[in-house]
Amino acid sequence: MTQEIKRLLIDSIDTVPDFPKQGIKFKDITTLLNKPEAFSQLMNHLQNRYKDIKIDYIVGLDARGFIFGSVLADRLNKGFVALRKRGKLPGETIKERYELEYGYDEVELRTNCFEGKKAKVLVVDDLLATGGTAKASAKLIHRLDATVVEFCFVIGLPELKGKDQLIDTAPVYTVLEF
Amino acid sequence: MTQEIKRLLIDSIDTVPDFPKQGIKFKDITTLLNKPEAFSQLMNHLQNRYKDIKIDYIVGLDARGFIFGSVLADRLNKGFVALRKRGKLPGETIKERYELEYGYDEVELRTNCFEGKKAKVLVVDDLLATGGTAKASAKLIHRLDATVVEFCFVIGLPELKGKDQLIDTAPVYTVLEF
Repeated sequence: MTQEIKRLLIDSIDTVPDFPKQGIKFKDITTLLNKPEAFSQLMNHLQNRYKDIKIDYIVGLDARGFIFGSVLADRLNKGFVALRKRGKLPGETIKERYELEYGYDEVELRTNCFEGKKAKVLVVDDLLATGGTAKASAKLIHRLDATVVEFCFVIGLPELKGKDQLIDTAPVYTVLEF
Repeated sequence: MTQEIKRLLIDSIDTVPDFPKQGIKFKDITTLLNKPEAFSQLMNHLQNRYKDIKIDYIVGLDARGFIFGSVLADRLNKGFVALRKRGKLPGETIKERYELEYGYDEVELRTNCFEGKKAKVLVVDDLLATGGTAKASAKLIHRLDATVVEFCFVIGLPELKGKDQLIDTAPVYTVLEF
């Protein structure tokens, strides 16, 4: 990625102080999505990165991961799988819980989401913070006899050490770090 | 759309009985997304429908509307705007409430999502049921001095009369009806 494109992407991401709570500087990628040039350059970069890698499915994490994951799946002509927070998927599902600051939450996959055996999966989300959701996602993917080729995030926050949670499972790629 | 493609799409959508509650036959488009051929044919159809229409932004409704909306925005090289359920968007937002069976919920838009004046907007979601969310979305779009060019849904459920809620605002297009 050229410095010019990197600058375009960074400038398109809004930083909102004290969201969702006091002291957090929230990186908002919705402002990047509003700008076709920035969004398209970002997707060109990801398409180029993954075009020659053997991938069967792209799993997008609920909900902003749906955006980058589905566009990448469309561009690479791969199946797209929506990994959802609990209670959103119908039919037979499997669940994994992950810890929140207080309590826990769950993510789910439909058991029929990967056709055939040993699917190769790229996990996509907008942002890597502590890595809890992505780690739970990988557990679900493994339980369905598939493997994670890579974790791909638009933004990484290295301070929160999310990579440490994931690196034993698969490589972790972040387009931008803050 | 040819009958063959229509059949492919219909066969790719799973019907799950009694979700999210007793008596409802849930149309699940996640099974269509898993299949690159079906997903791609659907998006070809939508791209073709909107390619010559003046649109500035595509607004995708939280959360499955993000999938079809962002892919369409990418293919048409338009800005994508994520309309979210309450509490998910940072920064300055405007809100509209809409009725649920019991109580109500709210949708939000960031106030800076449309650049310039009088943006032309296509609203995209996976499914039109009663039309409550889409109607609230249109109100938000109007409050930001933009106009709705069309409401576009992958699936319509005519029994629930969602079109009646929306038709005074803009045309309503559904790819498939059940």
